[in-house]
Amino acid sequence: MKFDKDGNVTTFEKKKMELYHELSLQARDLRFQHLTSITARNNNIIIRMEALKAVVTPNSLLVLDFRGLGLERWLVLELAPQLNGDHGALATHSLPFEFRALEAILQHRVNTLQARLNEVHPVILDILESLVDPKLLSADRSKLHILLQNSKNLSELETDIKVFKDSLLKILDEEEMIEELCVTKWTDPRVFEESSLGIDHAEEMELLLENYFMQAEELGNTTRELKGLIDDSESVIFINLDSHRNVMMRLNLQLTMGTFSLSLFGLMGVAFGMNLESTFEEDPKVFWLVTGFMFLGSGLIWRRLLSFLGRHLEPTVPPQIPTVWKRNQINSKGGEVKSGLR
Amino acid sequence: MKFDKDGNVTTFEKKKMELYHELSLQARDLRFQHLTSITARNNNIIIRMEALKAVVTPNSLLVLDFRGLGLERWLVLELAPQLNGDHGALATHSLPFEFRALEAILQHRVNTLQARLNEVHPVILDILESLVDPKLLSADRSKLHILLQNSKNLSELETDIKVFKDSLLKILDEEEMIEELCVTKWTDPRVFEESSLGIDHAEEMELLLENYFMQAEELGNTTRELKGLIDDSESVIFINLDSHRNVMMRLNLQLTMGTFSLSLFGLMGVAFGMNLESTFEEDPKVFWLVTGFMFLGSGLIWRRLLSFLGRHLEPTVPPQIPTVWKRNQINSKGGEVKSGLR
Amino acid sequence: MKFDKDGNVTTFEKKKMELYHELSLQARDLRFQHLTSITARNNNIIIRMEALKAVVTPNSLLVLDFRGLGLERWLVLELAPQLNGDHGALATHSLPFEFRALEAILQHRVNTLQARLNEVHPVILDILESLVDPKLLSADRSKLHILLQNSKNLSELETDIKVFKDSLLKILDEEEMIEELCVTKWTDPRVFEESSLGIDHAEEMELLLENYFMQAEELGNTTRELKGLIDDSESVIFINLDSHRNVMMRLNLQLTMGTFSLSLFGLMGVAFGMNLESTFEEDPKVFWLVTGFMFLGSGLIWRRLLSFLGRHLEPTVPPQIPTVWKRNQINSKGGEVKSGLR
Amino acid sequence: MKFDKDGNVTTFEKKKMELYHELSLQARDLRFQHLTSITARNNNIIIRMEALKAVVTPNSLLVLDFRGLGLERWLVLELAPQLNGDHGALATHSLPFEFRALEAILQHRVNTLQARLNEVHPVILDILESLVDPKLLSADRSKLHILLQNSKNLSELETDIKVFKDSLLKILDEEEMIEELCVTKWTDPRVFEESSLGIDHAEEMELLLENYFMQAEELGNTTRELKGLIDDSESVIFINLDSHRNVMMRLNLQLTMGTFSLSLFGLMGVAFGMNLESTFEEDPKVFWLVTGFMFLGSGLIWRRLLSFLGRHLEPTVPPQIPTVWKRNQINSKGGEVKSGLR
Amino acid sequence: MKFDKDGNVTTFEKKKMELYHELSLQARDLRFQHLTSITARNNNIIIRMEALKAVVTPNSLLVLDFRGLGLERWLVLELAPQLNGDHGALATHSLPFEFRALEAILQHRVNTLQARLNEVHPVILDILESLVDPKLLSADRSKLHILLQNSKNLSELETDIKVFKDSLLKILDEEEMIEELCVTKWTDPRVFEESSLGIDHAEEMELLLENYFMQAEELGNTTRELKGLIDDSESVIFINLDSHRNVMMRLNLQLTMGTFSLSLFGLMGVAFGMNLESTFEEDPKVFWLVTGFMFLGSGLIWRRLLSFLGRHLEPTVPPQIPTVWKRNQINSKGGEVKSGLR
Repeated sequence: MKFDKDGNVTTFEKKKMELYHELSLQARDLRFQHLTSITARNNNIIIRMEALKAVVTPNSLLVLDFRGLGLERWLVLELAPQLNGDHGALATHSLPFEFRALEAILQHRVNTLQARLNEVHPVILDILESLVDPKLLSADRSKLHILLQNSKNLSELETDIKVFKDSLLKILDEEEMIEELCVTKWTDPRVFEESSLGIDHAEEMELLLENYFMQAEELGNTTRELKGLIDDSESVIFINLDSHRNVMMRLNLQLTMGTFSLSLFGLMGVAFGMNLESTFEEDPKVFWLVTGFMFLGSGLIWRRLLSFLGRHLEPTVPPQIPTVWKRNQINSKGGEVKSGLR
Repeated sequence: MKFDKDGNVTTFEKKKMELYHELSLQARDLRFQHLTSITARNNNIIIRMEALKAVVTPNSLLVLDFRGLGLERWLVLELAPQLNGDHGALATHSLPFEFRALEAILQHRVNTLQARLNEVHPVILDILESLVDPKLLSADRSKLHILLQNSKNLSELETDIKVFKDSLLKILDEEEMIEELCVTKWTDPRVFEESSLGIDHAEEMELLLENYFMQAEELGNTTRELKGLIDDSESVIFINLDSHRNVMMRLNLQLTMGTFSLSLFGLMGVAFGMNLESTFEEDPKVFWLVTGFMFLGSGLIWRRLLSFLGRHLEPTVPPQIPTVWKRNQINSKGGEVKSGLR
Repeated sequence: MKFDKDGNVTTFEKKKMELYHELSLQARDLRFQHLTSITARNNNIIIRMEALKAVVTPNSLLVLDFRGLGLERWLVLELAPQLNGDHGALATHSLPFEFRALEAILQHRVNTLQARLNEVHPVILDILESLVDPKLLSADRSKLHILLQNSKNLSELETDIKVFKDSLLKILDEEEMIEELCVTKWTDPRVFEESSLGIDHAEEMELLLENYFMQAEELGNTTRELKGLIDDSESVIFINLDSHRNVMMRLNLQLTMGTFSLSLFGLMGVAFGMNLESTFEEDPKVFWLVTGFMFLGSGLIWRRLLSFLGRHLEPTVPPQIPTVWKRNQINSKGGEVKSGLR
Repeated sequence: MKFDKDGNVTTFEKKKMELYHELSLQARDLRFQHLTSITARNNNIIIRMEALKAVVTPNSLLVLDFRGLGLERWLVLELAPQLNGDHGALATHSLPFEFRALEAILQHRVNTLQARLNEVHPVILDILESLVDPKLLSADRSKLHILLQNSKNLSELETDIKVFKDSLLKILDEEEMIEELCVTKWTDPRVFEESSLGIDHAEEMELLLENYFMQAEELGNTTRELKGLIDDSESVIFINLDSHRNVMMRLNLQLTMGTFSLSLFGLMGVAFGMNLESTFEEDPKVFWLVTGFMFLGSGLIWRRLLSFLGRHLEPTVPPQIPTVWKRNQINSKGGEVKSGLR
Repeated sequence: MKFDKDGNVTTFEKKKMELYHELSLQARDLRFQHLTSITARNNNIIIRMEALKAVVTPNSLLVLDFRGLGLERWLVLELAPQLNGDHGALATHSLPFEFRALEAILQHRVNTLQARLNEVHPVILDILESLVDPKLLSADRSKLHILLQNSKNLSELETDIKVFKDSLLKILDEEEMIEELCVTKWTDPRVFEESSLGIDHAEEMELLLENYFMQAEELGNTTRELKGLIDDSESVIFINLDSHRNVMMRLNLQLTMGTFSLSLFGLMGVAFGMNLESTFEEDPKVFWLVTGFMFLGSGLIWRRLLSFLGRHLEPTVPPQIPTVWKRNQINSKGGEVKSGLR
């Protein structure tokens, strides 16, 4: 366990029980049951943000079980100077200690979420960009796999952002809980008097929490947009693949038509190739006649089939309606909203 | 930095610190942390709308950091006369200065959102119109790409509209915050007295904010409809492509049947073409017999296969149910609602 | 402009400014900014329903800018007798004038929405019915186009219903606004006294608005169901098209197998047809042997390929699980809910 | 019209006007405008559940317009004994008459909804079970049609459940309305006194309504699950059909490869079959050479093409990532939640 | 029936009626109508969690109808020591009996839900992992079947979690109900006095319920993520299958092109194979000429067709836009949010 006070950092080990006594808390209170929670108990703020567990007292910040979580760097290099206050890095540097501690932790949490988003965001955009490339005949399946994993990470990130927002919202919805979070106000009588003179800690606390709520909201908006983009891209990929297939199928059909024509008239050649007497054997003109008929016939039949295909794929009724529809839309909607402005 | 007062426009540079002192604000208040926010502090209204940062005092409007944002045109040509009031361009031209300033900024914001929608709207309609064209065998993939980008822009626009609406809604939900926004009421004792006589600033403020909330709502509705239209169009494109494919596949199948018949009976011709003695060589009638059999047989087999295909594609049970279903639906529903009117 | 009073209809032109004075309203109030709104100002009810703009005073109804909107018929033939009250057509015919006016306008609005739904509803059902017809190999693309347009109209109708419902809900949520709408109560001291004796105008107003809210809700439910039906039908169309394709593909594959067999053994015939000496030329039995081998071989190979295909398309593990699953479901769920009744 | 009182059943015809007088209601109140509504007016409860219209007075239940709705059976056989109370069939049999009447009607409504669900539920499960059968190459289109209709019925049922729930919720949300529904309390002074002594009718009424709200909620949950199941099944059907198609296409491709090989080498045979001198005519070894080359060549080319196909369909990068992903998931999530329990 | 008190376990059979009397409850109260409910009646807490029915009195826990539900193990081995309190297994071991009983039951419920999730979770992940494997040409249909069943189980689990959450939320939303659940407070006067001195049972109860609500919420989040993962995977499977098909179709098309070329030039060979005189019969060079022309011509035509195909599948306009779009996105969004932090 570790101790951080107005700038001095102390690390020590303590039994849980001693700690409870010192803070006059009950074992129940320090169970840190949910992944994300901020609660006030006996003028202490108990915070848990995934791996980070902390207790804020009016003049110190205790970070519990901090080892092996990859948090050491942040604790030593960033948290200490921020709490110190002289850095000016925090918006609340002129406010009591609990504000500084809370802001530092919330900011760390938002930064973590942001970092996770920043990691996933460009990867997804890159993959989508290469997948929707209209030149591709088939989707690269290893990229699809990476997309699926990132999309899964995105869902988890979305859940974490939602949980973070909900835990802040729960506090923001109850005036009373905001009051309880201003621990200095209740312990320091001087501050308490001041607060009745207008310098309101609760209002500052609300602004602080609201600020981080809004930041989480923006992160949430970005993830939602990203999910929408993945969905839209998937539709486009499907249309792309389907279009490619249709084009290939038409080519295939045209060639099948050609093969059919050739088979049909080839049959004639095969007939004359039989070792049967057809009485035409001796006439050299017949050779040219039949050969010419075979090739020309094939060609003609093919051409007829192709033009038949062309006609077959066109719809029966000319669709004159869409043009009207579009104009209509722009006029009625755009116009209405415009005129509604004045 | 720039200064706008009852019509006179002044531009000057100031240190942030001096500004804070002048407005008796704290550095925290001017941080402009969220992309869209409207807050009241010490009889000043602090507004941020994406790039635009402004402070409204009871008798002046300060626009901060306005350079390089493409806002100059609007500031000089539109904002000044609007604030002046003699233009009559604002619905609130008879109300105190803060109303005029707020309306001008909100209107600018809604106009910006509307302009973005107007940009995306016709492009999407155009592309969709050309994509759902039933004559097309395959979707134009470069158009799909443009559609994807516009749909992405639409999502971002939707988020911005939502954020704008939320920030207005947050104020509308709290009576107290509306009161705080009426800065003139609190600074001018004459107005304060009047207000107790019935001319209520807070109510006017509520109407003003509600008005722009409704306009944003209408924009939001339009974007939502547009998204729905994109979804519906994609379904139609898929059905279109699938239909084309099925038609082509049937043609292909019919030709494959023909080729198969020709191969089958061509085999007979090949058999007789072998350099093997079949004892029929000398009979000229056999030639015609076999040739005729080949062509006729091919034709007959093909015809049988085609009719087999025809039967194969029909369902087993005649679906007589839909007609009942439809009538039923119209009677029960339409009738009920109609009769429910009286 | 036009004037309607207790049954007499007067039409006249007036400047906007004069009108404002007469009604002691401000220009702001008559701006009719939103497409759908009902507001009370100075004992007047200002109503806008899309094109229809009206002001209800305690004893008259003013319809503004009514020309060229296709409303004349309704105004003359229906509105006048309804307001008159002797028709008995309105549920509120025994209540003060403003109730009758409001009910007539709301009813007109709901009727308009209902008429739009009635227009779209049977068309969509007709098209869906013909599109899901399982006999069809491909969807009729001109019908798809009409479906798309109707589905677009449906979305717009849904939005309008939502906007209508929201504007009613906004009033229903605030007791105070309902009170303000009862204009007679505030102008007629006799009614005011009565109302304290139990005949409550506000309650009647709430019932009136709620009634039309419920009717709009029912319209909304119908549009939602219709949208769901379109979605479901699209899935069915896709499955239909896919099924057709699979059936055709299997036929195609079977024929390709036949063609392959024929080619394989035809090669033998071609081999013997070469002008090369094979030493078998003179034996007539060889002709029958090879020919028979060609045809029989083709047939056998084809049959083997077909049975291979048959086996290939079957799954490896026999799925015995579904039967359990179904029974299970009915027992557990159906039974639970049933037993929960007592 | 019909009259039901403490067990006695009377049927009589009455003019609407007389009825209004008798119950001291206004015509407006009996309009039964919405499909589902429960309202209290002048110590009468006016109920409408689709076709069923009823008025509950403190000591009788009037069912209006009951003929021709298929309700007779229920009215005579079930309703009468239930209201009688000696049956003990109702949970509220010891409570005043209006509770018994209300419970009987609500229970009838829930039973009707449940019956509709029970009708649709097994049919949908049956059809889905047969449609997702992996052995099927194509979906049975007549079954799809029945599925579509049942899915439509399910949507309508969902709407009805929602409307029923909403009408109950509207009452549950307003304490005052629950009080009004306890008509006996307001008419019987003895009961009124008791109620101030703790036997609270309003609380019993709340429990009663809540009970049926929960039952409707459960029905709603079941329909929602069923809709989800239809969606999931459709996805599975699509994947099934697509898989079948891919398997068939691969077979087709393999056969096309074979046909191609045969054609290629058959061309050689055709060449030698020409009536042109190739100087090889006399050598019998050449026959065997060329024939052998044709067959072997075909076979080799085919084998090469098949192995090319095999390589072509495999992805470029070996996907080692999924295994990590899965383990990861189980550890992080499952573990976290587990450990969160203590 | 069974009796559990401070550690002693008694099992006995009792008539329902006697039980009602003993607990001074009414038959109505013990009906256990909903699958999940927690209600307080006359200082007893009546709990139903699916199969488990229990009544908590201030100093004992009655579990009703416990036989044949598979609960015996849990009742004997876990519940008894937990209620005993000396185990220290419950967070509420220092609080009155009803807390311990409630926590034990809620924990059992959450554990059951968790166990069901743990059962479904790895199976779904396993199946998805094997289904999205990009090497597969077709989805294993028996796995799809298992996926469908698990997805159905997941939906049911989701509903159960929702119902559990809703029943807790209903209590948490009403202060009064939480008070009623603290049965010891109302029966033991000593505790009642204490509670006015600050040791607040209601607050502890709220924390307890909130804790389990949060745990259910986390379970709900996991199921939602899992459902999202299934959806995403299905899209990926579709794209995979479509890609495979496109690749195969291109190969097929290329081969069809080859076959077509061979047929075309084979026709020439067939022509010369006819038993007709072409005057070239005697010239040996013609044999080589025609044979060479046939093979070379086939090859050339094939090559032309392939290159035509290559050009045909490329889009008309080079899509240079995506690169801009991506950079843009990262800068504008990521940058904005980042800068918003300070």
